[in-house]
Amino acid sequence: MLASPAAEMPHKRPTIQDVARAARVHPSTVSRVLNPRTRGLVSPAVAKRVESLARRLGYTPDPVAAGLRTRRSATVGVLIPDMANPVFPLILRGIESALMAGGYTAIITNTDNDPARAREALDRLAARRVEGAILATATLRDPVLARCRALGLPVVLVNRSVPGDKVSAVVNDDAAGIALAVGHLLALGHRAIGHVAGPGRISTGQARRAGFAAALRARGMAAPAVPAANYDIAAGERACSELLAANPRLTAIVAANDLLALGCYDALARRGAACPREVSITGFNDITFADRFAPPLTTVRIPHRVMGEQAGRLLLAEIEDPQAPKQEIKLEPVLVVRGSTAPPRTKRRKP
Amino acid sequence: MLASPAAEMPHKRPTIQDVARAARVHPSTVSRVLNPRTRGLVSPAVAKRVESLARRLGYTPDPVAAGLRTRRSATVGVLIPDMANPVFPLILRGIESALMAGGYTAIITNTDNDPARAREALDRLAARRVEGAILATATLRDPVLARCRALGLPVVLVNRSVPGDKVSAVVNDDAAGIALAVGHLLALGHRAIGHVAGPGRISTGQARRAGFAAALRARGMAAPAVPAANYDIAAGERACSELLAANPRLTAIVAANDLLALGCYDALARRGAACPREVSITGFNDITFADRFAPPLTTVRIPHRVMGEQAGRLLLAEIEDPQAPKQEIKLEPVLVVRGSTAPPRTKRRKP
Repeated sequence: MLASPAAEMPHKRPTIQDVARAARVHPSTVSRVLNPRTRGLVSPAVAKRVESLARRLGYTPDPVAAGLRTRRSATVGVLIPDMANPVFPLILRGIESALMAGGYTAIITNTDNDPARAREALDRLAARRVEGAILATATLRDPVLARCRALGLPVVLVNRSVPGDKVSAVVNDDAAGIALAVGHLLALGHRAIGHVAGPGRISTGQARRAGFAAALRARGMAAPAVPAANYDIAAGERACSELLAANPRLTAIVAANDLLALGCYDALARRGAACPREVSITGFNDITFADRFAPPLTTVRIPHRVMGEQAGRLLLAEIEDPQAPKQEIKLEPVLVVRGSTAPPRTKRRKP
Repeated sequence: MLASPAAEMPHKRPTIQDVARAARVHPSTVSRVLNPRTRGLVSPAVAKRVESLARRLGYTPDPVAAGLRTRRSATVGVLIPDMANPVFPLILRGIESALMAGGYTAIITNTDNDPARAREALDRLAARRVEGAILATATLRDPVLARCRALGLPVVLVNRSVPGDKVSAVVNDDAAGIALAVGHLLALGHRAIGHVAGPGRISTGQARRAGFAAALRARGMAAPAVPAANYDIAAGERACSELLAANPRLTAIVAANDLLALGCYDALARRGAACPREVSITGFNDITFADRFAPPLTTVRIPHRVMGEQAGRLLLAEIEDPQAPKQEIKLEPVLVVRGSTAPPRTKRRKP
């Protein structure tokens, strides 16, 4: 009988021993080289030889088996409140790139802003033995965060924080961002400025509203504000209509995010008021296509990618050392001026 | 010594036996009830009792342990070419909801349109023992698809297909969608229509271009087209400029997707040509905010969520039965008419 041709032979998965033998090193050295967290412990020349042999032999480590030995799954859960809000895919990219550099994979879950779904998602992730969680979903008294604590799961908040709570977070300087928007409107000559605020149960809603009030009161000016029920366009339209009904002489509105700003566009259109000719509008986040809106939106740009990267790195550090000090990283936003802001048509209108 | 209060007692994780004892059923019944794929095998009354007791006792199945017994991880890999293209988050929501209903979790990976990253991502996913993959990244000769085959991994393509290949896919009827756009422009009176095509290496690029040519040639009209190098705004602008330079009398352009349509907006703006007054533009996909562009984009809407759901369901069926027949599901798009299309200013201009 003839031997089967090689292509027909059943494929035997190469083992770490095969690589170690070929590279003339101990299997634990192979393991160190192929784990991005420990590669630095091996000399570059050896690491290079092991890597190229592993590749040639077609060896890849088995993280499931490794996870059983070490109780490490090398996965991290990421909870996103609303995938349709384009700020989150941008932050995700940063998270993924930091995790990948550390040899970790993200399991991303969309909670649709539903606390019950978020709790369920976290329990599913915990059952899969994720080693930590990044929450973009935090509310000010967050049951999901409490559940992470109860499970002893390292956790980092991104974009939103829970002030007063001992948890690491990567956020924007919300007050400074709002001050940029207010300063821009004041410089254009606006003296009657209102705020469509974010939901009061979310840190960004509270911090941006406080920043708005502080910036105007510092100049002795009124700071009328109406909070939106959610960070979405429809809620922005309702809050803006209410704000304008109570304050018909406003010449500019600072919205707490870009979706709320689009809701302000809709509220103005419904009243037949032109933006920016009659009312200037500013947003917050600089989401994808903000430069394409009609008019293009003047907004406060947050460093999405860097936020995500920092959140990923903080989480890896806490997984490595659960006693690592908690950190709050605050990033500086910048103002992007586009077509939705202009000088007020008249500084005073007759009653 | 006093007994410790209950709250201080070390928490013992409840087992499947605890639930079975409380519900007076065999542990395998508990297991069936708590697995969405087998729940139908148990009577509704028993299923309800088991579920409520499991919840009361705080029991959740351990999928890692279960995966070791059954060699099932209950996870699926999803490869997305570009998270910044808002069509993909919409499709993802559908995928997630179908997988969740089947008790599966998605591990989502962004490949940034890089075939090398896609291959690496697939290998990482395979090492984590995902049970199948959904590829939104397919190219016409796809090395990632070949790798899935080599690994014996069930796979479903979404949005893009590999014609002639035996693989399940959920796609749009691209030719029918383009015919809707062409029909709309013809009805408005346009007789000089061009096409900014998608990349030729992707099925949607080819199928939409063929659909465009077929729709116009059926009426004996020319069908000038220039392919974009990628599905992004900058590539759309370059292709549109080239198309207009070679065909200066075009009064309408059918773009192969919405990002390319935005590139056409930019190319027209650069030439000082107004849309739709001088040139009408149509897109494809109806991404988030297409209604907010300046002008709001007339486009072909694809049923994102249903696409994702069908892809998720197809994959679960193939995981359940690897011999299941391969299916191509083709969904019907609809035309959404907005402000980027209008009758041509003049049907003929003098040379």
